[in-house]
Amino acid sequence: MTEILATHVREAHERIRGHVHRTPVLTSTRINELSGAEVFFKCENFQKTGAFKARGAANAVLSLSEAEAARGVATHSSGNHAAALSWAARLRGIRSTVVMPRTASRVKIASVERYGGTIIYCEPNHRAREEAADKVVRETGATLIHPFNDRRVIAGQGTAALELLEDVPGLDAVVCPVGGGGLLAGTAVIARAASPSTRVLAGEPEGAADASASLASGVRHPVETPASVADGLLAYVGDLTFPVIQAQVERIATVSDAEILEAVRLLFGVLKIVVEPSGAVGYAAVAGGGLGVAGKRVGVILSGGNVDLERVLGL
Amino acid sequence: MTEILATHVREAHERIRGHVHRTPVLTSTRINELSGAEVFFKCENFQKTGAFKARGAANAVLSLSEAEAARGVATHSSGNHAAALSWAARLRGIRSTVVMPRTASRVKIASVERYGGTIIYCEPNHRAREEAADKVVRETGATLIHPFNDRRVIAGQGTAALELLEDVPGLDAVVCPVGGGGLLAGTAVIARAASPSTRVLAGEPEGAADASASLASGVRHPVETPASVADGLLAYVGDLTFPVIQAQVERIATVSDAEILEAVRLLFGVLKIVVEPSGAVGYAAVAGGGLGVAGKRVGVILSGGNVDLERVLGL
Repeated sequence: MTEILATHVREAHERIRGHVHRTPVLTSTRINELSGAEVFFKCENFQKTGAFKARGAANAVLSLSEAEAARGVATHSSGNHAAALSWAARLRGIRSTVVMPRTASRVKIASVERYGGTIIYCEPNHRAREEAADKVVRETGATLIHPFNDRRVIAGQGTAALELLEDVPGLDAVVCPVGGGGLLAGTAVIARAASPSTRVLAGEPEGAADASASLASGVRHPVETPASVADGLLAYVGDLTFPVIQAQVERIATVSDAEILEAVRLLFGVLKIVVEPSGAVGYAAVAGGGLGVAGKRVGVILSGGNVDLERVLGL
Repeated sequence: MTEILATHVREAHERIRGHVHRTPVLTSTRINELSGAEVFFKCENFQKTGAFKARGAANAVLSLSEAEAARGVATHSSGNHAAALSWAARLRGIRSTVVMPRTASRVKIASVERYGGTIIYCEPNHRAREEAADKVVRETGATLIHPFNDRRVIAGQGTAALELLEDVPGLDAVVCPVGGGGLLAGTAVIARAASPSTRVLAGEPEGAADASASLASGVRHPVETPASVADGLLAYVGDLTFPVIQAQVERIATVSDAEILEAVRLLFGVLKIVVEPSGAVGYAAVAGGGLGVAGKRVGVILSGGNVDLERVLGL
C-alpha cells in the first residue's frame, strides 16, 4: 500500500488552489469565553459546493490522465461528495455520473443537477448503491472516485488543514469531524509534517461512533445501524483512512445529537454562520470538554454548510 | 463645520485596528450568476458586537481625552450602536450609559448588559429618548456619542470600506445600506480618496426612503412614519452625514421588504452566513437592478448579523 504523505497534500494544494476558495478563519471572543479555549474556525462551509468535499473531488479529477478524464468519473453518494464531484467534473469539462438512493433529499439532487451531473437512482441500501456504481464503471470506463477511501481524495481534504496551519501558526490542536475519515486522515498527514507539536483530534456522533471505537480497540469495526442528526458522518471508517488515523490521531471524542444541535445554534447566533450538523461536530467536541483542550489554541474545521436549518433546528 | 476627510478615516483605522476584526471578503459564483455582477461581500456581520457599529464606537471612545473618558459616555439607541458603545467603553475601561425605549428587544438589552453598559429605560418616543440622554450628560458629564451624526463615528465606519478597497483593488462600485448615513458617509469619504474611479452607491428601504428622496430633491426631509423589516435603517439622515452623501454618493436605490427578506434568505442559503435585514439592503439593491451595476465588480458591505432569523423569516 502506498503511504499518503504530506507531499501529496502539498501537491494537491498546488493543483486545486486556483479552483477552490481559501476559506477564511473566524474567531469570536464570546465563543472563547463559552468554550474555555482559544478557537480558530476554518470555514469550509463557505467552500465551493458548500463543503470541504470540493477539495478532494477537485484533486482527484484534476489528477486524472487525459485518457481517464475522457471516460468521465462516477461515484455513489447521497451527500456533499456527490455535488462536489459533479462540480469538479464540470471544472475539467468531463462527464460525471452519481448513483443516489431514490430517497435522497431534493436539495442534494438539485445541487448535482446544477453542476451538470447525471444521476442514476437506486434502492436505498449499500449493496444497490455499489452495484449500480460498478455497472456505470463497467459500461462507460468511468473512474470511480470514492467519497473518502481514495488517496487523491484524502490528499485533497488535507489542504484545508494546510491552509489553517499556515494562517494560524502555533496551534496546540486541530479538530475535525470524522465519518469515513477522509478529512481526518488528510488533516493528520499534513499536521504531523507541517506542525509536529499540533495534536490531531476529532469529534464523532455517538450514534455513529465506529471510528472512536475502532481507535480504542485497535481493530476497525462498524456500527450496526448508524444514526445521527449529523447525516454526513454515518459512513464506516475506511481501510485506507483508518491506518492513518490509528497512527496519527490522538483522540476522538463522541458527542450527542443534542450537543451537535447546540453547536449549530451557537455558531449561527454568535459566529453568524450557517453550519450543517455534520460540520459542527468538531466544535461540539471542543465544547463538550472531552478533548482536553481547555486554555489551548485550537483550530476547528467547520466542514460544511448545506442544511435546511428550519428542518434541523425545528424553528 | 469641519470637513470629514479621508485622513480621519485612516487615523481611525490606526486607532481601532487592534480592537476590531478585519472581516473577511466572501465571494460566490452562484450569487454572481444570480445577480449578474461580480460581487465581493465585506462581512461586517462577523464584526465585534455583530455589526460595523463597533468601528465607529471604538473610534469615538478611543478618541476621548483622559478627562473626557473619566466621565464616561452615553447614547440613546435601541439597536446595534447601543451594544457597540458599551463594548467600546469596556475596551477603555470606562462607564457607558444607554437610554433605550422600554419596548426594546430582549436580545438587544441582553447584549448591552453583557458588555457592562448601564441601561436607562424611557418611553418609546424620540423626545423621551433625547431628554433622558440629555439628563445623563448633564448629571454625569458623560460625552454623548450619537449613533451616526458624529465625525468620530463617521470616520470609524469608513474603515470597513477602507479595508474592502485594500483587499479588492479595482472595484467599479461600493454599495452599503443607508439609515442615518454614518456608514455611507464614511464609505464615500474614503472611497473618493482611495479609489476615485469607484462609484459610491447605496440601498434604502422603501418604507424609510428619506435619504434617497432628500438626495433627489437636494433638501434633507424626513419620512413621517418610517417602517421596514430593516429596523436598523429607520433613522432620519443626519445634518452631518447628508452633505457628504449629497456631494459624493451617485445613487441610492430603494428596495421593498420582500426584496430585503429574499436577500437575507439567499445570503443564508448560498453564502452560508447570517445577515440581519438591515445588513442585506446593499445586496438587495444590487440584485434589484436599480443601481446599474450589471457586469461590474461590486463591493457590498453586509453591515450586521444580529437577528432572530426564525422571527424574521417566519420559519
